[in-house]
Amino acid sequence: MVDIASRVWNHKWKIDPIVRSLIDTDFYKLLMCQSIFRNKPDTQVTFSLINRSTHVPLAKLIDEGELREQLDHVRSLSLSRGESTWLRGNTFYGKRQMFRPDFMEWFEGLRLPPYHLERKGDQYELTFEGKWHEVMLWEIPALAILMELRGRAVLDTMGKFELQVLYARAMTRVWEKIETLREIPNLSIADFGTRRRHSYLWQDWCVQAMSEGLGGAFTGTSNCKIAMSREVEAIGTNAHELPMVYAALAPDDAALAKAPYDVLQDWHEEHEGNLRIILPDTYGTKGFLENAPDWLAGWTGIRVDSGDPATAANTAIEWWKSRGEDPRKKRVIFSDGLDVEKIKTLHGDFAGKVNVSFGWGTLLTNDFRKLVPDDALAPFSLVCKAVSANGKPTVKLSDNPRKAMGPADEIARYKRVFGVGDQVAEEVVV
Amino acid sequence: MVDIASRVWNHKWKIDPIVRSLIDTDFYKLLMCQSIFRNKPDTQVTFSLINRSTHVPLAKLIDEGELREQLDHVRSLSLSRGESTWLRGNTFYGKRQMFRPDFMEWFEGLRLPPYHLERKGDQYELTFEGKWHEVMLWEIPALAILMELRGRAVLDTMGKFELQVLYARAMTRVWEKIETLREIPNLSIADFGTRRRHSYLWQDWCVQAMSEGLGGAFTGTSNCKIAMSREVEAIGTNAHELPMVYAALAPDDAALAKAPYDVLQDWHEEHEGNLRIILPDTYGTKGFLENAPDWLAGWTGIRVDSGDPATAANTAIEWWKSRGEDPRKKRVIFSDGLDVEKIKTLHGDFAGKVNVSFGWGTLLTNDFRKLVPDDALAPFSLVCKAVSANGKPTVKLSDNPRKAMGPADEIARYKRVFGVGDQVAEEVVV
Repeated sequence: MVDIASRVWNHKWKIDPIVRSLIDTDFYKLLMCQSIFRNKPDTQVTFSLINRSTHVPLAKLIDEGELREQLDHVRSLSLSRGESTWLRGNTFYGKRQMFRPDFMEWFEGLRLPPYHLERKGDQYELTFEGKWHEVMLWEIPALAILMELRGRAVLDTMGKFELQVLYARAMTRVWEKIETLREIPNLSIADFGTRRRHSYLWQDWCVQAMSEGLGGAFTGTSNCKIAMSREVEAIGTNAHELPMVYAALAPDDAALAKAPYDVLQDWHEEHEGNLRIILPDTYGTKGFLENAPDWLAGWTGIRVDSGDPATAANTAIEWWKSRGEDPRKKRVIFSDGLDVEKIKTLHGDFAGKVNVSFGWGTLLTNDFRKLVPDDALAPFSLVCKAVSANGKPTVKLSDNPRKAMGPADEIARYKRVFGVGDQVAEEVVV
Repeated sequence: MVDIASRVWNHKWKIDPIVRSLIDTDFYKLLMCQSIFRNKPDTQVTFSLINRSTHVPLAKLIDEGELREQLDHVRSLSLSRGESTWLRGNTFYGKRQMFRPDFMEWFEGLRLPPYHLERKGDQYELTFEGKWHEVMLWEIPALAILMELRGRAVLDTMGKFELQVLYARAMTRVWEKIETLREIPNLSIADFGTRRRHSYLWQDWCVQAMSEGLGGAFTGTSNCKIAMSREVEAIGTNAHELPMVYAALAPDDAALAKAPYDVLQDWHEEHEGNLRIILPDTYGTKGFLENAPDWLAGWTGIRVDSGDPATAANTAIEWWKSRGEDPRKKRVIFSDGLDVEKIKTLHGDFAGKVNVSFGWGTLLTNDFRKLVPDDALAPFSLVCKAVSANGKPTVKLSDNPRKAMGPADEIARYKRVFGVGDQVAEEVVV
């Protein structure tokens, strides 16, 4: 039987919205948002889209009108009652009331601030200016919208069965990865693939397939909406934007050198246990750990997000040992450019030495490589970053010079202040 | 929105019926049924299930109660008004009113006759006794039911996403075959895979995928129900049961030698054009053609269904030449154990020499080989044949001694009467 009402209802949509909920975003965004809401509520920040894959001509592929419709739709969203109830009542990392009542009250009233969109050649300039804790919530939906609109442009000309077989192939690929992962004993892996996913429905499928295929080895998803609807754990801690903005706000070099630790000092006061995860690479992992205060060695673990992952993990292990900590009680979360082979290798190398976890991103939720002609559905390196704070530019160095961003003179200054020497360039996968 | 009525309705089914329509059967069955209804209405025939793949223990895999429920459901079916309208009003092979009013009137009142089911060790003995034109309609649903119940038994323990990936893999496989076939110029191929299909829905999917992927190169399906619902051509002519029963009814050797031509004489009076397709292998292709009356050389083509297909096609080509016919105006339909590679080879060898067509069966609609452990979903060689007529056993020789059937002394007599010498044994694929 055809459900006539459903069909008529579907025809009433003017667009097929890509992002349909304010919590269709990464969990760490909400944690950071709350932290900023408390600690830096008056900071003015600009987020900007950066397409590192300049060979992908986004403005040729995506109609500006359609892009505006999708972004406008996000601006029409507000937290639903059920979403609010879930955020207030759910247990995150074993803790109830992770989100404080004052934050929730503010969040319930939030609509996302305006965006600025302009075509520049074959690319779009897309920026978000405003209060940090408001504009920062644009990052994930903006990326997801651009990635999915590009995909829709490619899928637009395909036949019904051709489409079904495309998804059949993609499903088979994900499942084969799951079958490989299933053979790794004591695996611990989560979905971190919201921002550059193929689509919401596809990410939702991947999460469910991981859940069925891996059982307890699948620890959850970074996507709050999917975590809520599929009743799995919401996963994530914090990201580079915190030290980047704190650093940009520093009035002098001494304050700059201290800024990354100030971030974690604020975090330390708000969170404990598995949420105390160091992200050390913003201005070079090595120097960051060497100069870190002792209380930071007591934190639960570290997230490795750039550079050679084994080098970073070994650096952390040596650092823990030097601070009298037992690495076997610490956690290392790998989250940079992962795919099955890298996961296997890293797990083989570090299981037993530390507790190993994986945050698997784009190559879980958007591995459509080589599935259509010209590889037109392959994921590409699109990011949306805080580029200035209170009028001052932000800088990121990371452990991979190809991921560095900021004005050249500021990059040089940061390298001097943080004592970053030569770095090994690594290919940016996605 | 959930369609509540649909859901409740689905819950009311006591079983999930495998065969839901009397025309979920091969088109040639209906053509032959009409011919028998006119020419041999009083013949008593027994059809019997024969599992040539004795390593598949059907009675261990399939519950007898479930099998009875499915068979009983088929007995509850009668032709629906729409089905009857389609049979009466549709164009088949370019002809209107292919089915005569007296036949349609009888068919509209038909319910399938009783079956006899008994477990014998690990196999089932399943027979149908009665009027030839009634029991012959059991062949296709009986085979489809057994094949699908065996599949269901295997699928029963699989998870939801595991199942989805199984079908994703099978879809990808079919599509890759279609992509290969797409490269063959002037291909002409039809679905002949009803009897040993994986399931109705799967066959329906394959037909639609072939239709989208091959366009005009896909000439139709043997399945009447799918031809009707997908608005494609219904394809098929006649099968071995006609000469087998005519032969069994022959009172002496002279009549026996004439029997296969009597069949085609009757057919000649009823049909023309593309329906005049010779199936010459029942008692050996070579002798059949050598002894054939001249009017048969005027027929449109030949169907190659056993033995080495190239040999049979060449035999036919030489025969046409010897009778003064131009083979390039004739059609050769290959239909035995086909898969993409064999199709490519045969097309390459015979395109230009004759009009080549393919009737693609089990490896289109049931290629689940190697997709589950122990290859438990691989298709196997299950047939349902007329084994006796008016109390006398039937015999089939075919061009492959492994496909021969009948009592040994009768096989010897038939070989003598039809002058069949040594034959090359070919593996029976499915």
